[in-house]
Amino acid sequence: MGISSRDTGLNYHVSVDCVVFGFEFGKLNALLIEREMQFEGSTYTDLKLPGDLVRTDEDLDTAAARVLKELTGLENIYLKQYAAIGTPNRLTRLERDMEWLRQIGHPEKVVVTVAYYSLINIDQDKINKFQLQKNARWQAVSQISELAFDHLEILNEALQTLRTELRSNPIGFELLPNKFTLSQLQKLYEVILGVSFDKRNFRKKVTNMPYIVPINEKERGVSHKPARYYIFSKKIYEKTRKNSLDFSM
Amino acid sequence: MGISSRDTGLNYHVSVDCVVFGFEFGKLNALLIEREMQFEGSTYTDLKLPGDLVRTDEDLDTAAARVLKELTGLENIYLKQYAAIGTPNRLTRLERDMEWLRQIGHPEKVVVTVAYYSLINIDQDKINKFQLQKNARWQAVSQISELAFDHLEILNEALQTLRTELRSNPIGFELLPNKFTLSQLQKLYEVILGVSFDKRNFRKKVTNMPYIVPINEKERGVSHKPARYYIFSKKIYEKTRKNSLDFSM
Repeated sequence: MGISSRDTGLNYHVSVDCVVFGFEFGKLNALLIEREMQFEGSTYTDLKLPGDLVRTDEDLDTAAARVLKELTGLENIYLKQYAAIGTPNRLTRLERDMEWLRQIGHPEKVVVTVAYYSLINIDQDKINKFQLQKNARWQAVSQISELAFDHLEILNEALQTLRTELRSNPIGFELLPNKFTLSQLQKLYEVILGVSFDKRNFRKKVTNMPYIVPINEKERGVSHKPARYYIFSKKIYEKTRKNSLDFSM
Repeated sequence: MGISSRDTGLNYHVSVDCVVFGFEFGKLNALLIEREMQFEGSTYTDLKLPGDLVRTDEDLDTAAARVLKELTGLENIYLKQYAAIGTPNRLTRLERDMEWLRQIGHPEKVVVTVAYYSLINIDQDKINKFQLQKNARWQAVSQISELAFDHLEILNEALQTLRTELRSNPIGFELLPNKFTLSQLQKLYEVILGVSFDKRNFRKKVTNMPYIVPINEKERGVSHKPARYYIFSKKIYEKTRKNSLDFSM
Protein backbone atom coordinates (compact mmCIF):
# COMPACT_ATOMS: atom_id res chain seq x y z
CA MET A 1 0.00 0.00 0.00
CA GLY A 2 1.48 3.30 -1.04
CA ILE A 3 0.35 5.62 1.71
CA SER A 4 -0.87 5.33 5.25
CA SER A 5 -3.06 7.92 6.86
CA ARG A 6 -0.23 8.89 9.15
CA ASP A 7 1.84 10.14 6.21
CA THR A 8 -0.50 12.52 4.60
CA GLY A 9 -3.18 13.84 6.99
CA LEU A 10 -5.88 12.44 4.84
CA ASN A 11 -9.04 13.67 6.42
CA TYR A 12 -11.50 14.66 3.82
CA HIS A 13 -15.05 15.77 3.87
CA VAL A 14 -17.34 14.58 1.14
CA SER A 15 -20.24 16.61 -0.18
CA VAL A 16 -22.80 16.29 -2.95
CA ASP A 17 -23.82 19.12 -5.29
CA CYS A 18 -26.92 19.03 -7.48
CA VAL A 19 -27.34 20.76 -10.82
CA VAL A 20 -31.05 20.66 -11.59
CA PHE A 21 -31.93 22.03 -15.02
CA GLY A 22 -35.49 23.25 -15.37
CA PHE A 23 -36.71 23.45 -18.94
CA GLU A 24 -39.58 25.68 -19.92
CA PHE A 25 -40.47 26.77 -23.41
CA GLY A 26 -37.71 29.00 -24.70
CA LYS A 27 -35.55 28.89 -21.57
CA LEU A 28 -33.21 26.57 -19.74
CA ASN A 29 -32.89 27.34 -16.04
CA ALA A 30 -30.74 26.04 -13.24
CA LEU A 31 -31.87 25.70 -9.64
CA LEU A 32 -29.80 27.88 -7.34
CA ILE A 33 -29.69 28.79 -3.66
CA GLU A 34 -29.27 32.35 -2.48
CA ARG A 35 -26.73 32.75 0.24
CA GLU A 36 -26.40 35.81 2.39
CA MET A 37 -23.51 36.64 4.66
CA GLN A 38 -21.76 39.44 6.48
CA PHE A 39 -18.46 40.20 4.84
CA GLU A 40 -16.14 43.11 5.47
CA GLY A 41 -18.84 45.08 7.27
CA SER A 42 -21.73 44.70 4.86
CA THR A 43 -24.29 42.17 3.74
CA TYR A 44 -23.20 40.17 0.75
CA THR A 45 -25.51 37.93 -1.29
CA ASP A 46 -24.78 35.58 -4.10
CA LEU A 47 -25.82 32.26 -5.57
CA LYS A 48 -24.61 28.69 -5.22
CA LEU A 49 -25.70 25.18 -6.22
CA PRO A 50 -27.77 23.14 -3.77
CA GLY A 51 -25.21 21.03 -1.97
CA ASP A 52 -24.12 19.84 1.45
CA LEU A 53 -21.88 17.44 3.32
CA VAL A 54 -22.70 13.73 3.20
CA ARG A 55 -23.41 11.70 6.35
CA THR A 56 -21.24 8.66 6.95
CA ASP A 57 -24.32 6.48 7.36
CA GLU A 58 -25.84 7.19 3.95
CA ASP A 59 -24.75 6.41 0.42
CA LEU A 60 -24.09 9.15 -2.10
CA ASP A 61 -27.32 8.83 -4.11
CA THR A 62 -29.37 9.03 -0.91
CA ALA A 63 -27.39 12.08 0.19
CA ALA A 64 -28.03 13.85 -3.11
CA ALA A 65 -31.80 13.33 -2.87
CA ARG A 66 -31.86 14.34 0.80
CA VAL A 67 -29.81 17.51 0.26
CA LEU A 68 -31.92 18.58 -2.71
CA LYS A 69 -35.10 18.15 -0.69
CA GLU A 70 -33.78 19.88 2.43
CA LEU A 71 -32.41 22.89 0.56
CA THR A 72 -34.98 23.39 -2.21
CA GLY A 73 -38.09 21.38 -1.37
CA LEU A 74 -37.80 19.33 -4.58
CA GLU A 75 -38.19 15.58 -4.33
CA ASN A 76 -38.74 12.55 -6.57
CA ILE A 77 -36.38 13.95 -9.19
CA TYR A 78 -34.11 11.54 -11.07
CA LEU A 79 -30.56 12.64 -10.22
CA LYS A 80 -27.67 11.26 -12.22
CA GLN A 81 -24.13 11.25 -10.86
CA TYR A 82 -21.68 12.62 -13.43
CA ALA A 83 -18.43 13.61 -11.71
CA ALA A 84 -16.37 13.63 -8.55
CA ILE A 85 -14.37 16.81 -8.14
CA GLY A 86 -11.33 16.79 -5.91
CA THR A 87 -9.22 19.79 -6.80
CA PRO A 88 -7.25 20.94 -3.79
CA ASN A 89 -8.35 24.37 -2.53
CA ARG A 90 -11.52 24.23 -4.62
CA LEU A 91 -13.48 25.92 -1.84
CA THR A 92 -10.94 28.47 -0.70
CA ARG A 93 -9.95 30.46 -3.74
CA LEU A 94 -11.89 33.52 -2.63
CA GLU A 95 -11.64 35.25 0.73
CA ARG A 96 -15.41 35.63 1.05
CA ASP A 97 -15.89 31.90 0.45
CA MET A 98 -13.41 31.08 3.22
CA GLU A 99 -15.19 33.58 5.48
CA TRP A 100 -18.57 32.00 4.77
CA LEU A 101 -17.24 28.55 5.59
CA ARG A 102 -15.97 29.87 8.92
CA GLN A 103 -19.32 31.54 9.67
CA ILE A 104 -21.33 28.38 9.14
CA GLY A 105 -18.91 26.27 11.14
CA HIS A 106 -17.76 24.27 8.11
CA PRO A 107 -14.69 22.24 8.87
CA GLU A 108 -11.56 23.64 7.34
CA LYS A 109 -10.75 20.51 5.50
CA VAL A 110 -10.54 19.51 1.92
CA VAL A 111 -13.90 18.69 0.47
CA VAL A 112 -14.33 16.32 -2.42
CA THR A 113 -17.73 16.83 -3.98
CA VAL A 114 -19.77 14.36 -5.97
CA ALA A 115 -21.89 16.10 -8.57
CA TYR A 116 -25.34 15.09 -9.81
CA TYR A 117 -27.50 16.55 -12.54
CA SER A 118 -31.13 16.35 -13.56
CA LEU A 119 -33.35 17.72 -16.32
CA ILE A 120 -36.98 18.47 -15.55
CA ASN A 121 -39.82 20.21 -17.27
CA ILE A 122 -41.09 23.22 -15.32
CA ASP A 123 -43.60 24.51 -17.81
CA GLN A 124 -46.57 26.49 -16.59
CA ASP A 125 -49.02 23.67 -16.31
CA LYS A 126 -46.74 21.63 -14.14
CA ILE A 127 -45.42 24.38 -11.89
CA ASN A 128 -47.42 23.31 -8.86
CA LYS A 129 -45.56 20.03 -8.77
CA PHE A 130 -42.31 21.80 -7.97
CA GLN A 131 -42.80 24.09 -4.98
CA LEU A 132 -39.50 25.69 -4.05
CA GLN A 133 -38.33 26.75 -0.62
CA LYS A 134 -37.85 30.44 -0.04
CA ASN A 135 -34.18 30.91 -0.84
CA ALA A 136 -34.15 28.48 -3.77
CA ARG A 137 -34.89 29.86 -7.20
CA TRP A 138 -34.66 29.19 -10.93
CA GLN A 139 -32.18 31.26 -12.91
CA ALA A 140 -31.77 31.25 -16.70
CA VAL A 141 -28.50 29.44 -17.44
CA SER A 142 -27.57 31.99 -20.09
CA GLN A 143 -27.63 34.65 -17.36
CA ILE A 144 -25.44 32.89 -14.82
CA SER A 145 -22.00 34.48 -14.89
CA GLU A 146 -20.79 33.96 -11.35
CA LEU A 147 -21.42 31.49 -8.54
CA ALA A 148 -19.87 30.77 -5.15
CA PHE A 149 -16.85 28.47 -4.90
CA ASP A 150 -16.22 26.45 -8.07
CA HIS A 151 -19.92 26.00 -8.67
CA LEU A 152 -19.87 27.68 -12.06
CA GLU A 153 -17.35 25.07 -13.27
CA ILE A 154 -19.51 22.32 -11.81
CA LEU A 155 -22.58 23.73 -13.55
CA ASN A 156 -20.76 24.05 -16.85
CA GLU A 157 -19.60 20.44 -16.65
CA ALA A 158 -23.20 19.38 -15.99
CA LEU A 159 -24.31 21.40 -19.00
CA GLN A 160 -21.73 19.70 -21.24
CA THR A 161 -22.87 16.32 -19.97
CA LEU A 162 -26.51 17.22 -20.65
CA ARG A 163 -25.68 18.45 -24.16
CA THR A 164 -23.78 15.28 -25.01
CA GLU A 165 -26.71 13.25 -23.72
CA LEU A 166 -29.20 15.29 -25.78
CA ARG A 167 -27.18 14.67 -28.94
CA SER A 168 -26.88 10.92 -28.37
CA ASN A 169 -30.19 9.83 -26.84
CA PRO A 170 -33.81 10.89 -27.33
CA ILE A 171 -34.12 12.61 -23.95
CA GLY A 172 -35.36 15.81 -25.56
CA PHE A 173 -38.63 14.19 -26.52
CA GLU A 174 -39.43 13.60 -22.86
CA LEU A 175 -39.62 17.37 -22.45
CA LEU A 176 -42.04 17.88 -25.33
CA PRO A 177 -45.73 17.08 -25.52
CA ASN A 178 -46.60 13.85 -27.35
CA LYS A 179 -47.54 15.96 -30.36
CA PHE A 180 -45.16 18.80 -31.09
CA THR A 181 -44.35 21.23 -33.89
CA LEU A 182 -40.93 21.49 -35.51
CA SER A 183 -40.65 24.99 -34.08
CA GLN A 184 -41.03 23.59 -30.59
CA LEU A 185 -38.43 20.90 -31.33
CA GLN A 186 -35.99 23.41 -32.78
CA LYS A 187 -36.44 25.75 -29.82
CA LEU A 188 -35.75 22.93 -27.37
CA TYR A 189 -32.49 21.98 -29.07
CA GLU A 190 -31.45 25.62 -29.39
CA VAL A 191 -32.16 26.41 -25.77
CA ILE A 192 -30.32 23.39 -24.37
CA LEU A 193 -27.41 23.35 -26.82
CA GLY A 194 -27.06 27.13 -26.61
CA VAL A 195 -26.93 27.52 -30.39
CA SER A 196 -29.13 28.91 -33.15
CA PHE A 197 -30.15 26.77 -36.08
CA ASP A 198 -31.17 27.97 -39.50
CA LYS A 199 -34.84 27.01 -39.74
CA ARG A 200 -34.61 25.51 -43.21
CA ASN A 201 -31.47 23.47 -42.41
CA PHE A 202 -33.05 22.19 -39.22
CA ARG A 203 -36.14 21.00 -41.06
CA LYS A 204 -33.95 19.41 -43.73
CA LYS A 205 -32.16 17.39 -41.03
CA VAL A 206 -35.49 16.30 -39.61
CA THR A 207 -36.39 14.76 -42.96
CA ASN A 208 -33.36 12.48 -42.46
CA MET A 209 -34.85 11.29 -39.19
CA PRO A 210 -37.54 8.73 -39.93
CA TYR A 211 -38.35 8.57 -36.19
CA ILE A 212 -39.73 12.14 -36.21
CA VAL A 213 -43.04 11.45 -37.87
CA PRO A 214 -45.54 14.00 -39.23
CA ILE A 215 -49.13 13.25 -38.28
CA ASN A 216 -52.40 14.21 -39.85
CA GLU A 217 -53.12 17.00 -37.41
CA LYS A 218 -52.30 20.68 -37.10
CA GLU A 219 -52.32 23.29 -34.37
CA ARG A 220 -55.64 24.89 -33.54
CA GLY A 221 -56.63 28.16 -31.96
CA VAL A 222 -53.36 29.89 -32.75
CA SER A 223 -52.97 33.34 -34.23
CA HIS A 224 -50.22 32.29 -36.66
CA LYS A 225 -50.50 29.83 -39.50
CA PRO A 226 -51.26 26.47 -37.82
CA ALA A 227 -48.21 24.21 -37.94
CA ARG A 228 -48.26 20.47 -38.48
CA TYR A 229 -47.80 18.20 -35.50
CA TYR A 230 -45.13 15.52 -35.31
CA ILE A 231 -44.52 12.61 -32.96
CA PHE A 232 -41.40 10.76 -31.87
CA SER A 233 -41.51 7.07 -32.74
CA LYS A 234 -39.41 5.04 -30.33
CA LYS A 235 -39.97 1.96 -32.48
CA ILE A 236 -38.56 3.54 -35.61
CA TYR A 237 -35.74 5.14 -33.62
CA GLU A 238 -34.63 1.75 -32.40
CA LYS A 239 -34.67 0.40 -35.94
CA THR A 240 -32.29 3.16 -37.08
CA ARG A 241 -29.82 2.00 -34.44
CA LYS A 242 -29.33 -1.12 -36.56
CA ASN A 243 -26.59 0.58 -38.54
CA SER A 244 -24.92 1.69 -35.36
CA LEU A 245 -22.09 -0.06 -33.56
CA ASP A 246 -24.58 -1.72 -31.29
CA PHE A 247 -24.02 -5.17 -32.72
CA SER A 248 -26.25 -6.65 -30.06
CA MET A 249 -29.33 -4.99 -31.60
CA MET B 1 -26.91 24.66 5.52
CA GLY B 2 -28.41 21.36 6.63
CA ILE B 3 -25.60 19.81 8.60
CA SER B 4 -22.53 20.92 10.42
CA SER B 5 -19.54 18.73 10.98
CA ARG B 6 -20.27 18.63 14.69
CA ASP B 7 -23.59 16.85 14.10
CA THR B 8 -22.51 13.92 12.10
CA GLY B 9 -18.81 13.05 12.60
CA LEU B 10 -18.14 13.55 8.99
CA ASN B 11 -14.57 12.54 8.55
CA TYR B 12 -14.15 10.61 5.39
CA HIS B 13 -11.23 9.23 3.58
CA VAL B 14 -11.20 9.39 -0.18
CA SER B 15 -9.53 6.80 -2.35
CA VAL B 16 -9.24 6.08 -6.05
CA ASP B 17 -9.59 2.64 -7.63
CA CYS B 18 -8.51 1.81 -11.17
CA VAL B 19 -10.05 -0.82 -13.43
CA VAL B 20 -7.61 -1.30 -16.29
CA PHE B 21 -8.88 -3.64 -18.98
CA GLY B 22 -6.17 -5.25 -21.09
CA PHE B 23 -7.36 -6.56 -24.43
CA GLU B 24 -5.51 -9.26 -26.28
CA PHE B 25 -6.84 -11.35 -29.11
CA GLY B 26 -9.58 -13.57 -27.77
CA LYS B 27 -9.38 -12.37 -24.16
CA LEU B 28 -10.32 -9.41 -22.01
CA ASN B 29 -8.25 -9.09 -18.87
CA ALA B 30 -8.35 -6.86 -15.82
CA LEU B 31 -5.30 -5.65 -13.94
CA LEU B 32 -5.31 -6.90 -10.36
CA ILE B 33 -3.06 -6.74 -7.31
CA GLU B 34 -2.32 -9.78 -5.18
CA ARG B 35 -2.62 -9.16 -1.51
CA GLU B 36 -1.28 -11.45 1.15
CA MET B 37 -2.07 -11.32 4.82
CA GLN B 38 -2.04 -13.32 8.03
CA PHE B 39 -5.58 -14.17 9.03
CA GLU B 40 -6.73 -16.55 11.74
CA GLY B 41 -3.34 -18.20 11.97
CA SER B 42 -2.57 -18.79 8.33
CA THR B 43 -1.50 -16.94 5.21
CA TYR B 44 -4.37 -15.74 3.10
CA THR B 45 -4.04 -14.41 -0.44
CA ASP B 46 -6.56 -12.88 -2.75
CA LEU B 47 -6.95 -10.22 -5.40
CA LYS B 48 -8.02 -6.58 -5.41
CA LEU B 49 -8.11 -3.61 -7.78
CA PRO B 50 -5.18 -1.19 -7.79
CA GLY B 51 -6.28 1.59 -5.49
CA ASP B 52 -5.18 3.77 -2.61
CA LEU B 53 -6.02 6.82 -0.54
CA VAL B 54 -5.80 10.24 -2.14
CA ARG B 55 -3.52 12.98 -0.81
CA THR B 56 -5.14 16.27 0.14
CA ASP B 57 -2.69 18.15 -2.05
CA GLU B 58 -3.50 16.39 -5.31
CA ASP B 59 -6.59 16.27 -7.50
CA LEU B 60 -8.39 13.02 -8.20
CA ASP B 61 -7.11 12.44 -11.74
CA THR B 62 -3.52 12.95 -10.57
CA ALA B 63 -4.11 10.53 -7.69
CA ALA B 64 -5.45 7.85 -10.04
CA ALA B 65 -2.39 8.04 -12.31
CA ARG B 66 0.00 8.07 -9.33
CA VAL B 67 -1.66 5.11 -7.61
CA LEU B 68 -1.69 3.06 -10.80
CA LYS B 69 2.00 3.70 -11.36
CA GLU B 70 3.00 3.04 -7.74
CA LEU B 71 1.10 -0.22 -7.48
CA THR B 72 1.47 -1.71 -10.96
CA GLY B 73 4.24 0.14 -12.79
CA LEU B 74 1.85 1.24 -15.56
CA GLU B 75 1.95 4.86 -16.65
CA ASN B 76 0.72 7.08 -19.50
CA ILE B 77 -2.58 5.24 -19.61
CA TYR B 78 -5.74 7.26 -20.29
CA LEU B 79 -7.91 6.80 -17.20
CA LYS B 80 -11.54 7.85 -17.29
CA GLN B 81 -13.50 8.60 -14.14
CA TYR B 82 -16.85 6.82 -14.18
CA ALA B 83 -18.27 6.66 -10.65
CA ALA B 84 -17.97 7.71 -7.03
CA ILE B 85 -18.98 4.98 -4.63
CA GLY B 86 -20.01 5.89 -1.14
CA THR B 87 -21.92 2.99 0.32
CA PRO B 88 -21.53 2.92 4.09
CA ASN B 89 -19.56 -0.10 5.30
CA ARG B 90 -18.34 -0.87 1.79
CA LEU B 91 -14.96 -1.90 3.12
CA THR B 92 -16.01 -3.77 6.22
CA ARG B 93 -18.45 -6.42 5.13
CA LEU B 94 -15.95 -9.21 5.63
CA GLU B 95 -13.92 -9.91 8.77
CA ARG B 96 -10.75 -10.56 6.80
CA ASP B 97 -11.07 -7.22 5.01
CA MET B 98 -11.44 -5.41 8.35
CA GLU B 99 -8.40 -7.34 9.65
CA TRP B 100 -6.31 -6.37 6.61
CA LEU B 101 -7.19 -2.71 7.06
CA ARG B 102 -6.02 -2.92 10.66
CA GLN B 103 -2.77 -4.64 9.66
CA ILE B 104 -1.82 -1.97 7.17
CA GLY B 105 -2.72 0.85 9.53
CA HIS B 106 -5.65 2.01 7.44
CA PRO B 107 -7.81 4.47 9.28
CA GLU B 108 -11.09 3.00 10.47
CA LYS B 109 -13.16 5.58 8.73
CA VAL B 110 -15.60 5.55 5.92
CA VAL B 111 -13.92 5.61 2.56
CA VAL B 112 -15.58 7.05 -0.50
CA THR B 113 -13.80 5.79 -3.57
CA VAL B 114 -13.66 7.39 -6.99
CA ALA B 115 -13.39 4.81 -9.73
CA TYR B 116 -11.54 5.08 -13.03
CA TYR B 117 -11.35 2.72 -15.97
CA SER B 118 -9.16 2.27 -18.99
CA LEU B 119 -8.96 -0.02 -22.03
CA ILE B 120 -5.56 -0.89 -23.44
CA ASN B 121 -4.20 -3.31 -25.98
CA ILE B 122 -1.74 -5.78 -24.46
CA ASP B 123 -1.18 -7.97 -27.49
CA GLN B 124 2.08 -9.82 -27.86
CA ASP B 125 3.91 -7.26 -29.97
CA LYS B 126 3.23 -4.50 -27.47
CA ILE B 127 3.85 -6.38 -24.24
CA ASN B 128 7.16 -4.71 -23.52
CA LYS B 129 5.44 -1.36 -23.21
CA PHE B 130 3.56 -2.51 -20.16
CA GLN B 131 5.99 -3.93 -17.60
CA LEU B 132 4.12 -4.88 -14.45
CA GLN B 133 5.40 -4.80 -10.89
CA LYS B 134 5.73 -8.14 -9.13
CA ASN B 135 2.39 -8.44 -7.37
CA ALA B 136 0.35 -6.93 -10.20
CA ARG B 137 -1.03 -9.26 -12.83
CA TRP B 138 -3.56 -9.64 -15.62
CA GLN B 139 -6.51 -11.91 -15.01
CA ALA B 140 -9.16 -12.89 -17.57
CA VAL B 141 -12.34 -11.04 -16.63
CA SER B 142 -14.45 -14.14 -17.32
CA GLN B 143 -12.48 -15.93 -14.60
CA ILE B 144 -12.83 -13.32 -11.87
CA SER B 145 -15.42 -14.54 -9.38
CA GLU B 146 -14.27 -12.93 -6.15
CA LEU B 147 -12.28 -9.86 -5.14
CA ALA B 148 -11.51 -8.08 -1.88
CA PHE B 149 -13.95 -5.51 -0.49
CA ASP B 150 -16.57 -4.38 -3.02
CA HIS B 151 -14.07 -4.49 -5.85
CA LEU B 152 -16.02 -7.04 -7.88
CA GLU B 153 -18.97 -4.64 -7.96
CA ILE B 154 -16.66 -1.80 -8.97
CA LEU B 155 -15.16 -3.93 -11.72
CA ASN B 156 -18.59 -4.98 -12.98
CA GLU B 157 -19.72 -1.35 -13.13
CA ALA B 158 -16.59 -0.51 -15.13
CA LEU B 159 -17.34 -3.38 -17.49
CA GLN B 160 -20.91 -2.13 -18.05
CA THR B 161 -19.56 1.34 -18.74
CA LEU B 162 -17.02 -0.07 -21.21
CA ARG B 163 -19.69 -2.14 -22.97
CA THR B 164 -22.01 0.86 -23.33
CA GLU B 165 -19.10 2.88 -24.72
CA LEU B 166 -18.20 0.11 -27.20
CA ARG B 167 -21.79 0.04 -28.50
CA SER B 168 -22.02 3.81 -28.93
CA ASN B 169 -18.60 4.95 -30.11
CA PRO B 170 -15.95 3.44 -32.39
CA ILE B 171 -13.48 2.70 -29.58
CA GLY B 172 -13.19 -0.94 -30.64
CA PHE B 173 -11.34 0.02 -33.81
CA GLU B 174 -8.54 1.51 -31.73
CA LEU B 175 -7.79 -2.00 -30.49
CA LEU B 176 -7.58 -3.51 -33.96
CA PRO B 177 -4.87 -3.17 -36.57
CA ASN B 178 -5.60 -0.65 -39.36
CA LYS B 179 -6.50 -3.60 -41.58
CA PHE B 180 -8.56 -6.28 -39.89
CA THR B 181 -10.68 -9.29 -40.81
CA LEU B 182 -14.33 -9.65 -39.87
CA SER B 183 -13.36 -12.58 -37.66
CA GLN B 184 -11.06 -10.30 -35.68
CA LEU B 185 -13.81 -7.68 -35.39
CA GLN B 186 -16.37 -10.23 -34.29
CA LYS B 187 -13.99 -11.72 -31.73
CA LEU B 188 -13.32 -8.28 -30.24
CA TYR B 189 -17.00 -7.51 -29.79
CA GLU B 190 -17.68 -10.99 -28.38
CA VAL B 191 -14.84 -10.81 -25.92
CA ILE B 192 -15.71 -7.36 -24.59
CA LEU B 193 -19.50 -7.70 -24.64
CA GLY B 194 -19.29 -11.22 -23.23
CA VAL B 195 -21.66 -12.64 -25.85
CA SER B 196 -21.49 -14.94 -28.88
CA PHE B 197 -22.67 -13.80 -32.25
CA ASP B 198 -23.84 -15.97 -35.10
CA LYS B 199 -21.16 -15.49 -37.77
CA ARG B 200 -23.61 -14.97 -40.64
CA ASN B 201 -25.80 -12.50 -38.70
CA PHE B 202 -22.73 -10.56 -37.64
CA ARG B 203 -21.52 -10.24 -41.23
CA LYS B 204 -25.00 -9.23 -42.30
CA LYS B 205 -24.99 -6.38 -39.77
CA VAL B 206 -21.59 -5.29 -41.04
CA THR B 207 -23.06 -4.82 -44.52
CA ASN B 208 -25.38 -2.21 -42.94
CA MET B 209 -22.33 -0.32 -41.73
CA PRO B 210 -20.89 1.68 -44.62
CA TYR B 211 -17.99 2.77 -42.38
CA ILE B 212 -16.57 -0.78 -42.25
CA VAL B 213 -15.05 -0.90 -45.70
CA PRO B 214 -13.67 -3.98 -47.51
CA ILE B 215 -10.34 -3.34 -49.20
CA ASN B 216 -8.64 -5.03 -52.10
CA GLU B 217 -6.31 -7.10 -49.93
CA LYS B 218 -6.43 -10.47 -48.19
CA GLU B 219 -4.50 -12.19 -45.46
CA ARG B 220 -1.23 -13.84 -46.41
CA GLY B 221 0.83 -16.62 -44.93
CA VAL B 222 -2.09 -18.17 -43.04
CA SER B 223 -2.99 -21.84 -42.94
CA HIS B 224 -6.72 -21.23 -43.36
CA LYS B 225 -8.47 -19.69 -46.36
CA PRO B 226 -7.17 -16.09 -46.48
CA ALA B 227 -9.85 -13.63 -45.34
CA ARG B 228 -10.46 -10.21 -46.80
CA TYR B 229 -9.22 -7.18 -44.93
CA TYR B 230 -11.46 -4.30 -43.91
CA ILE B 231 -10.78 -0.81 -42.62
CA PHE B 232 -12.76 1.57 -40.41
CA SER B 233 -13.55 4.85 -42.16
CA LYS B 234 -13.92 7.65 -39.66
CA LYS B 235 -15.07 9.96 -42.44
CA ILE B 236 -17.95 7.73 -43.47
CA TYR B 237 -18.80 7.02 -39.82
CA GLU B 238 -19.26 10.72 -39.20
CA LYS B 239 -21.50 11.03 -42.21
CA THR B 240 -23.81 8.32 -40.86
CA ARG B 241 -24.25 10.39 -37.72
CA LYS B 242 -26.23 12.84 -39.85
CA ASN B 243 -29.44 10.94 -39.19
CA SER B 244 -28.71 10.89 -35.48
CA LEU B 245 -30.03 13.33 -32.92
CA ASP B 246 -26.85 15.31 -33.20
CA PHE B 247 -28.51 18.26 -34.88
CA SER B 248 -25.28 20.21 -34.69
CA MET B 249 -23.63 17.88 -37.23
